[in-house]
Amino acid sequence: MEQEILSTDTTSILSPAHFDFSQWSAAQLLRVEQALEGWVGVDTPADLGQAMRYAVLDGGKRLRPLLVLAAAQAVQGQPQAALRAACALELIHAYSLVHDDMPCMDNDVLRRGKPTVHVQYGEAVALLAGDALQAQAFELLTPSEQEVPAAIQAKLCRLLAQAAGGQGMAGGQAIDLASVGLALDEAQLSHMHALKTGALLEAAVSMGAACADVAPNVQVALSRYAKALGLAFQVVDDVLDVVADAATLGKTPGKDAANEKPTYVSLLGLEGARLYADQLLKTSLLALQDTGLSDVRALSALALMVVQRSH
Amino acid sequence: MEQEILSTDTTSILSPAHFDFSQWSAAQLLRVEQALEGWVGVDTPADLGQAMRYAVLDGGKRLRPLLVLAAAQAVQGQPQAALRAACALELIHAYSLVHDDMPCMDNDVLRRGKPTVHVQYGEAVALLAGDALQAQAFELLTPSEQEVPAAIQAKLCRLLAQAAGGQGMAGGQAIDLASVGLALDEAQLSHMHALKTGALLEAAVSMGAACADVAPNVQVALSRYAKALGLAFQVVDDVLDVVADAATLGKTPGKDAANEKPTYVSLLGLEGARLYADQLLKTSLLALQDTGLSDVRALSALALMVVQRSH
Repeated sequence: MEQEILSTDTTSILSPAHFDFSQWSAAQLLRVEQALEGWVGVDTPADLGQAMRYAVLDGGKRLRPLLVLAAAQAVQGQPQAALRAACALELIHAYSLVHDDMPCMDNDVLRRGKPTVHVQYGEAVALLAGDALQAQAFELLTPSEQEVPAAIQAKLCRLLAQAAGGQGMAGGQAIDLASVGLALDEAQLSHMHALKTGALLEAAVSMGAACADVAPNVQVALSRYAKALGLAFQVVDDVLDVVADAATLGKTPGKDAANEKPTYVSLLGLEGARLYADQLLKTSLLALQDTGLSDVRALSALALMVVQRSH
Repeated sequence: MEQEILSTDTTSILSPAHFDFSQWSAAQLLRVEQALEGWVGVDTPADLGQAMRYAVLDGGKRLRPLLVLAAAQAVQGQPQAALRAACALELIHAYSLVHDDMPCMDNDVLRRGKPTVHVQYGEAVALLAGDALQAQAFELLTPSEQEVPAAIQAKLCRLLAQAAGGQGMAGGQAIDLASVGLALDEAQLSHMHALKTGALLEAAVSMGAACADVAPNVQVALSRYAKALGLAFQVVDDVLDVVADAATLGKTPGKDAANEKPTYVSLLGLEGARLYADQLLKTSLLALQDTGLSDVRALSALALMVVQRSH
């Protein structure tokens, strides 16, 4: 089975004609940054609004928003719903980083090359800023029904809540916490990551798709794409944690090993982890072909970006 | 104006015929407890699910759920939507208490007579449990569209997100944090409380009303009822913080004074605060009359309960 996947020709989907990914992603990032700039923490009292903006408006990779917009483009989804979904997911991601960095969790002082939110604003404000960002994510998904139809609003809220909660991201973080110092096998490790980082990445694709009416078989193929991409993301993260330096990474490297956290590198070795990431990339690209959608160029380019990134 | 309000006869609305509030509230509480029992933290990994259940299933007053159900009854709202809204609000309330009690916030070790969540499960799990409870609130509001129409789901998510976020509860908490040691005047104090505790209490009423189609003038009157009740709730809280002991209160009393937090008692004196609470009760009951709704018995009984409670 693996042999078959590896030998399949994915050249056409990797290098689609007439598609400039950097141009596409620059245009989408501009939309996302402008929207976040206008929305996040606005009219919010005291330090809270500032801390929310500090946490979000600092040039993250915006991978989740780009995935939402790429998926919405592939299904020709409602643009305003897609933009709101993109920003909502980024707020959930940002809040999880704020809380993750706190002293009672990872106790990290550096994030994207800047002091973390609790270092900058104090722990109490960081806690509240994370909480308020999660609430604002759902606020972004529920504008007037003239702007986004109620049926899409409900679907987006449902997908986001499931992905963020105890059976999604927060659940994965709890497993991660409980697994420090334990020797997880590959199945346990991939289950943890499927929740901790995978759930939001999968939600990005399914939320993008939810901006239009999509046939079930297309949803299934998109979900296979997203699962492989989510896992690849984590495998590459583990590789980068070993090989990159703090300046490139924008955060403290080597923390996983120091914390005795299980990683794909500790499990498969550095070369094994790299090969696994390549294999997951191919799986995700084949799933894209299976969608039968005509414009999956941005989605395929994003999968490539996830595996080839240096930070 | 105040004189006029105080002299208005509210006897009929305070003692409605043929209504047994204890029976009504016992029946509603049973529905809410059973629903929470079946929903909260179920199928959630590691300690997380247990911590979520510990935070919620411990016999709080359930004032917010009762308000939702009373408002839904007054407007003859869809029962399943109302039950989900009631539980969702309670999850938001519970998560706010979990985070509020943490060492970086109020550092409280006792809540409803039991060790607080971070004392019982550790700070990291408490942080995650609060986060997961907030997400689950929105999950409860977004079941299948066969169960609750999408238009109601979207409306409920919108109201809850606004009430919980930076312009609602979390914003009020930020103002509260920033005001320690400051001499707030009454306008500033009431603004802080309107956000910190008022927003969720108002959301309870508006979410209950959103379970049906309600005329704008009815919404306005219900909102006046909820605003007065929310403020009364806080005034009574400040009174109880001074006069009640830990056993009755189920939490550490006298903390506000110890923390140099401004309160209605420090501002108006004990007797003044009590009189103000009574006046707010009358305001809320008059607003109920203005709704023109035929069955506001549970809503009026709840207002009375808020002002006359001993904990």
